[in-house]
Amino acid sequence: MKHLLSTSTLSRDEAILILDTAEDMAATQEREVKKLPALRGVTVVNLFFEDSTRTRISFEAAEKRLSADVINFAAKGSSVSKGESLKDTAQTLHAIGADAVVIRHPSTGAPQMLAERGWIDAPILNAGDGCHEHPTQALLDAFTLRRRLHGVASRGKGLDGAHIVIVGDILHSRVARSNVWLLTTLGARVTLVGPPTLLPAAIDGWPAETSYDLDAALAEGPDAVMMLRIQAERMHDSFFPHTREYARMWGLTDARFRGLPESTSIMHPGPMNRGLEIASAAADSPQSTVLEQVANGVSVRMAALYLLCSGVKEGR
Amino acid sequence: MKHLLSTSTLSRDEAILILDTAEDMAATQEREVKKLPALRGVTVVNLFFEDSTRTRISFEAAEKRLSADVINFAAKGSSVSKGESLKDTAQTLHAIGADAVVIRHPSTGAPQMLAERGWIDAPILNAGDGCHEHPTQALLDAFTLRRRLHGVASRGKGLDGAHIVIVGDILHSRVARSNVWLLTTLGARVTLVGPPTLLPAAIDGWPAETSYDLDAALAEGPDAVMMLRIQAERMHDSFFPHTREYARMWGLTDARFRGLPESTSIMHPGPMNRGLEIASAAADSPQSTVLEQVANGVSVRMAALYLLCSGVKEGR
Amino acid sequence: MKHLLSTSTLSRDEAILILDTAEDMAATQEREVKKLPALRGVTVVNLFFEDSTRTRISFEAAEKRLSADVINFAAKGSSVSKGESLKDTAQTLHAIGADAVVIRHPSTGAPQMLAERGWIDAPILNAGDGCHEHPTQALLDAFTLRRRLHGVASRGKGLDGAHIVIVGDILHSRVARSNVWLLTTLGARVTLVGPPTLLPAAIDGWPAETSYDLDAALAEGPDAVMMLRIQAERMHDSFFPHTREYARMWGLTDARFRGLPESTSIMHPGPMNRGLEIASAAADSPQSTVLEQVANGVSVRMAALYLLCSGVKEGR
Repeated sequence: MKHLLSTSTLSRDEAILILDTAEDMAATQEREVKKLPALRGVTVVNLFFEDSTRTRISFEAAEKRLSADVINFAAKGSSVSKGESLKDTAQTLHAIGADAVVIRHPSTGAPQMLAERGWIDAPILNAGDGCHEHPTQALLDAFTLRRRLHGVASRGKGLDGAHIVIVGDILHSRVARSNVWLLTTLGARVTLVGPPTLLPAAIDGWPAETSYDLDAALAEGPDAVMMLRIQAERMHDSFFPHTREYARMWGLTDARFRGLPESTSIMHPGPMNRGLEIASAAADSPQSTVLEQVANGVSVRMAALYLLCSGVKEGR
Repeated sequence: MKHLLSTSTLSRDEAILILDTAEDMAATQEREVKKLPALRGVTVVNLFFEDSTRTRISFEAAEKRLSADVINFAAKGSSVSKGESLKDTAQTLHAIGADAVVIRHPSTGAPQMLAERGWIDAPILNAGDGCHEHPTQALLDAFTLRRRLHGVASRGKGLDGAHIVIVGDILHSRVARSNVWLLTTLGARVTLVGPPTLLPAAIDGWPAETSYDLDAALAEGPDAVMMLRIQAERMHDSFFPHTREYARMWGLTDARFRGLPESTSIMHPGPMNRGLEIASAAADSPQSTVLEQVANGVSVRMAALYLLCSGVKEGR
Repeated sequence: MKHLLSTSTLSRDEAILILDTAEDMAATQEREVKKLPALRGVTVVNLFFEDSTRTRISFEAAEKRLSADVINFAAKGSSVSKGESLKDTAQTLHAIGADAVVIRHPSTGAPQMLAERGWIDAPILNAGDGCHEHPTQALLDAFTLRRRLHGVASRGKGLDGAHIVIVGDILHSRVARSNVWLLTTLGARVTLVGPPTLLPAAIDGWPAETSYDLDAALAEGPDAVMMLRIQAERMHDSFFPHTREYARMWGLTDARFRGLPESTSIMHPGPMNRGLEIASAAADSPQSTVLEQVANGVSVRMAALYLLCSGVKEGR
């Protein structure tokens, strides 16, 4: 692996290597060895063309625990045309000696462009691009689910035979997209559920089943239900039913939650809209993995940075 | 002490422990031992829901001198409801492993909420909440005054018998509030002076005298006069007399300053409105402690962080 | 040297000392000794009253490679009067123990004011003040040109006999201003070229020739052509011809570039307006030094910080 751009191109072995390395990282954190010297002298730039405090802080915590030098770069509202600006920025980062770049960008494909155009010779980590991919989110979800299923015996394992139901605005969700590829690569079965307007025919090529009937999907007793966040700014679009209607049709309500087996994990990438896509009873139950997901995010990002940058350090 | 939320709940022994530890911190800085390893591997998050460059920089300098890893988080203009947003943020910080949180928030009680709701298991330091409290400001004021009164023999001492006059917009001042509690806990006598509109009857429960007559209060020859900053945005409220009227009635003018004993310290939390609440002659005199206050702020914040976090490191 | 405010007051020996030290810094970076302990325990504040991501990141990378503690301070939109605000800020930085201040300010002379008023006892590095000076940019330009002319034998040398043509909006360019002084101090000959509205008689006192005829200036076969960036926001001023007219008259077009000797370096401070002041053929040619300039910026800033701060560490 030279970059981490998408989960669709990760092989099963690569994905399991990242998850196993994240287990090592988590273990050091649990033993209170908070600071590892692995990336001392390595400069990581967090290049955020879009606000995302949660993801930026998670990466920044991961980078600092690996002893990297961190430079934050919030590039909003640039008046320059997007392509030119990205090239100029990339060349600047290359020239100042950035050893790795974590990029968040509102345009699909910006991280790929950064990786492929040769403007910068450093590992690129996609921290979310448009409605396209968010690979570290999918990796932390897979890590969390693997731990729930296999506990301390997780290492080396995939998610073979697991069944995950992903619910909500599939059309606009980079979380859903990255998860579909990674979960199926790891051997899981994925069912996508949402309103017809948000679950388009165009996703027929994905390795996932689709359904407009949440109750039917939950009746199978899946290993995990992943509720996507509803973006408030989309609620006024014609895509969307009314809020109350949405909660009734597609939300993980109290009643739906009580109907699930106790072994079903309740996942959410956060931050949650309680009472909309998820009821508080579900969000705060022992089955909820919401906070584990956030905590595991640091371990998974440490693993990805470590694997991508340790190669760099020797190679340059 | 698990948190530093308010000076009203600090015991005299706790307050003196913080001030004495701040003396130790100041001593290392004066011996040019700028960097202490005390908080190596400890992650401190500066969570600022309100702009405050001076306070943020002072905390950041304190954290870096203790070798902590620092993550700055400026959370402005969030559209989510305040309570929910704070909970979500707190849980995120907990999950990424924050070891201490310095919080500035426009709403009274936000730091307490963070400390008490169990969302995060880390020391919380209140860096100013609404018109409520600003405990590290009061501690640095007490530290500065103790040094002025007792010099090198400060250690272990309180402020017994000292008399401090605090002047200005008492009603809206978290600095005044935190100082009243701390100064009296340390044995001092406090007189609050201001226009009737800004010095309400509601403060009768405070352990302080009140007066509408600045000249009478100064005639006692207090050990310190603390001039509060007038917020420009409040000057158009009906609370306020005209600017020139304010300076004449409640400002530390040249004439008033010349009438004070040379032993009276002139304090101000900064930044000053010269010519409004304080004349330049007073601000720049040897009696002025304005710059000492800023410098002492770093030592006091180092002390508070050290005392709160060193417990954490062992306990977790 | 106590500060780095302007290139007009740098002696030839001082300038060469900085360039030679930058060679040492570049050598450690090329040997992959990325992190030097030189400024451990030294706090550097980047005080930016004006946005400039490129310059801020370059300084921040330089500071972190020298192991300094870095505090970023973006002070925009302050409502206080400029002078007072700068004084208050400077005194605050002094009081919290800042060991060096890198300042960018929209007003000419702000760095000088900071250095001369005694508000703070620390080296001040001018990172751009108004239309006045940008000395580290000129130093990195001189460093880049010296390397192009003398290669590995650069150390100790100036730019004697070299001829540099600077083209564009001379009137508003701090880059041009700082370069004129430094290049001539190092023995080079400078020709300034631009439209009459942007190349005023007032610069007669500068040690440079002026011309309104770009083709005539290029016909001399200079050692370097430095194209200045056209600020989009100025294009609507009456100073300016229409965009296409500007490119035709004052741009380094394909045709003009092809007419230059291969030994002529093509310089630009970045970011470039391709097709406006510079054609892509010129910008991307082997003669272009644009990316070298950015990379050399880190070495030159490491050198300046090292030279100014190492004195401080011993002296205080």
